[in-house]
Amino acid sequence: MIIDCHGHYTTAPAALQEFRDAQLARLKDPSLPVPPAPEISDEEIRGTIEGNQLRIARERGHDLTIFSPRASSMGHHVADPETAVTWARVCNDLIYRVTTLFPENFAGVAQLPQVAGEPLDASVRELERAVTELGFVGCNLNPDPSGGFWSSPPLTDEYWFPVYEKMTELDVPAMIHVSTSCNPAAHTLGAHYLNADTTTFMQLVQGRLFERFPTLRFVIPHGGGAVPYHWGRFKGIAMREKFPPIEENVMSNVCFDTCVYHQPGIDLLTGVVDAGNILFASEMLGAVRGNNPDGDFPWDDTKRYVEAAKLADADRARIFEENARRVYPRLDARLKAQGR
Amino acid sequence: MIIDCHGHYTTAPAALQEFRDAQLARLKDPSLPVPPAPEISDEEIRGTIEGNQLRIARERGHDLTIFSPRASSMGHHVADPETAVTWARVCNDLIYRVTTLFPENFAGVAQLPQVAGEPLDASVRELERAVTELGFVGCNLNPDPSGGFWSSPPLTDEYWFPVYEKMTELDVPAMIHVSTSCNPAAHTLGAHYLNADTTTFMQLVQGRLFERFPTLRFVIPHGGGAVPYHWGRFKGIAMREKFPPIEENVMSNVCFDTCVYHQPGIDLLTGVVDAGNILFASEMLGAVRGNNPDGDFPWDDTKRYVEAAKLADADRARIFEENARRVYPRLDARLKAQGR
Repeated sequence: MIIDCHGHYTTAPAALQEFRDAQLARLKDPSLPVPPAPEISDEEIRGTIEGNQLRIARERGHDLTIFSPRASSMGHHVADPETAVTWARVCNDLIYRVTTLFPENFAGVAQLPQVAGEPLDASVRELERAVTELGFVGCNLNPDPSGGFWSSPPLTDEYWFPVYEKMTELDVPAMIHVSTSCNPAAHTLGAHYLNADTTTFMQLVQGRLFERFPTLRFVIPHGGGAVPYHWGRFKGIAMREKFPPIEENVMSNVCFDTCVYHQPGIDLLTGVVDAGNILFASEMLGAVRGNNPDGDFPWDDTKRYVEAAKLADADRARIFEENARRVYPRLDARLKAQGR
Repeated sequence: MIIDCHGHYTTAPAALQEFRDAQLARLKDPSLPVPPAPEISDEEIRGTIEGNQLRIARERGHDLTIFSPRASSMGHHVADPETAVTWARVCNDLIYRVTTLFPENFAGVAQLPQVAGEPLDASVRELERAVTELGFVGCNLNPDPSGGFWSSPPLTDEYWFPVYEKMTELDVPAMIHVSTSCNPAAHTLGAHYLNADTTTFMQLVQGRLFERFPTLRFVIPHGGGAVPYHWGRFKGIAMREKFPPIEENVMSNVCFDTCVYHQPGIDLLTGVVDAGNILFASEMLGAVRGNNPDGDFPWDDTKRYVEAAKLADADRARIFEENARRVYPRLDARLKAQGR
C-alpha cells in the first residue's frame, strides 16, 4: 500500500476560518462574544475531502494520508495561550471527523497549542487528548512558534522535553513543521518552510537529543529542506566540529519526506539518504498546485518521481509503506485492525 | 583558466583578529584607546596565503580566486556604524595587499560596513573606495545584518537601492552572503548560510527588482541554498502565486556558485540550472575542511565534482571561466590587461 505521511486539511469548510477570524477579532476587542465552535456538517466535510484530497489520492493510487490541520494556519505566533488551546482543539476535532468519515483513507496528526515563549503544558495535554481520545498517530511540532523570528531555543533544549516525554510515553512521532511566516523577509512556502527543515536538522546535528530520548522520532518534511542537497557539507561540518557521525546521532531517529517537486530532487534524495529514512509524502493540496507545463502533470505528484527513481523494489516498498508503519506504530496498529 | 569566485581570507594573520577584539572591547569600555590599525608584514601575508589558499589552489589547478574578507567575521550585527566603517576598511585594505602581492592569483571583493537598521551611505562610500582605489571587482552584500533575526526588509525593498545604484554605476556584482549567526537556533555554517541563500532567492522571485536595475547582478553562494534541490517547488510557487517566470525575472541576473560538497549535489545543480547561471567556486578554506573519508579527497574540492558532472565541454568552460568574466567585467578587464 501507499501511505502519504504529509497532508493538511487545506480545503476545510469556510466556517473554520470564520471561527478563527472571530477568535482573532475578539483578541483585539475583548468586548466581542466568545465565538461558538464552527458548525460544519458531515456533508460539508465529505464534499471538501471527496472533491479534493481523496479524489486526487484515488487518481494517483495513494491508499492513506496522515492528515493534520493546515500548517500555515496554526498561527503559534498569536500570543494568547487560551486562544491557542481552543484553536488547536477545534482544528483537531475537525480532523478527527475526517478520520471517522474516511477511516480507511485518513489517520490524524495533531496541531499543538504552542505559543511562542510560553511553556508547553497545554501542548502536552492536547497531544494526550488527540492520541488517547481521538486516535491520532502523531503530532506536528513547530520549532519556531514566533513565525520567522526564531526566538525559541533549539529543539535540543530542555524547553521541549515535556513534549518529548509525552511523545515517548505515547510512542508517537512528530513532524517538525512551522506555520506561517510573520517576517516579511521570509516567504512562508518558498523560504520559511525550507529554512525550518534545514535549521532543525542542524540543531540535531549539534546536539545529542536522541541519547536522552532514544525512541523519539521526528519527520523533517519537504525533503529535508536543503540537507540532502548539501549532504557532504553536513557530514563535513560534523567531522570538522567533532560532532558525532550524523548517521548514528541523527538518522537513527529522523526521516525526511518526499515533498520535493521534480524528478532530479527525488533522485538526489533517494540516492543520498538511506531508503530507511525516507517517507513517501506529497503534501497535496499544499504549497504547489497545478501542473508542470513541461510534462503536463502535477508538480506535487511525487509518487511519479519515487516510481521513476532508481530504487530496488524493496526500498521503494519501505518508502511507500513500511517506514511509515515503523515510524507511526499507532498507524500500523490501526491498519492491522482493519486487516491491512 | 579556472576562476574560483568564492574565497575568503579565513587564514589572515592573528593581528587582524586582535584588532577586532580591541575594537569590540572599546565598544564595551569607551575609556580604552582607539586601537591602531593592525601591523601585518608582507611576509606574514605571503606565509598565510602561500601556505594555505594558494598552495591548495595550485594543487587543484585553480588559476585565480575572487577573494574577500572572512564572511563570518563581518559582524554586521555590531550596532556601531563607525566601528563597522573602520573594520571594513581594515579588512579590505588587507585583501588589497593580498591582491597586490599575488596579482595573478587573487582579485578583491569588498566587505561593506553594513549595520542592521542603519542606512547604507557608508556602504556605498566603501564600495566606491574599494572598486576605484583598490581595484576590487565586486562586493559581498549581507541580506541579514542582524545575524539570524532577519530584521531587514527584503532585498527588493528600496532600502537597498543606494547600494544597487552604486553597483550599477561601477558595474560590479554582489555575492549575497550573511555573516555569523547570533541566533542560537541557527548554526552559522550549517543553517544560517544556506537559509540566507534560499530566503534571498525567494525574495527575488516575489519581486521585480531587475526590471528596476536591469544590469544588477547577484551571485547566490553555496549552490543556491535549497533552491536547485527544490527547483520544481519554486517554479510551481511562482506559477501558483502569479509571479513572473523565474527564468526571466530572476535568472537573468542571478548566478549560483558550486560550493556544494558532494558529487550528487553538483550533478543536481548542473542538471537543473542552466550552465550560464553557475559560477565555479570552492570557498576553500571555508565551512568544510579536511577529507571525505569515503574517497580520501577534500570535501571542498569542487573542481573534481564539476569535472565529473555530465556537462558539455563548452558548458564546463562557462562554469569554470566565462561566466565569471561576464559577471565580473572588472575582473575580465584585469585579466585582459595581464594578457589572459
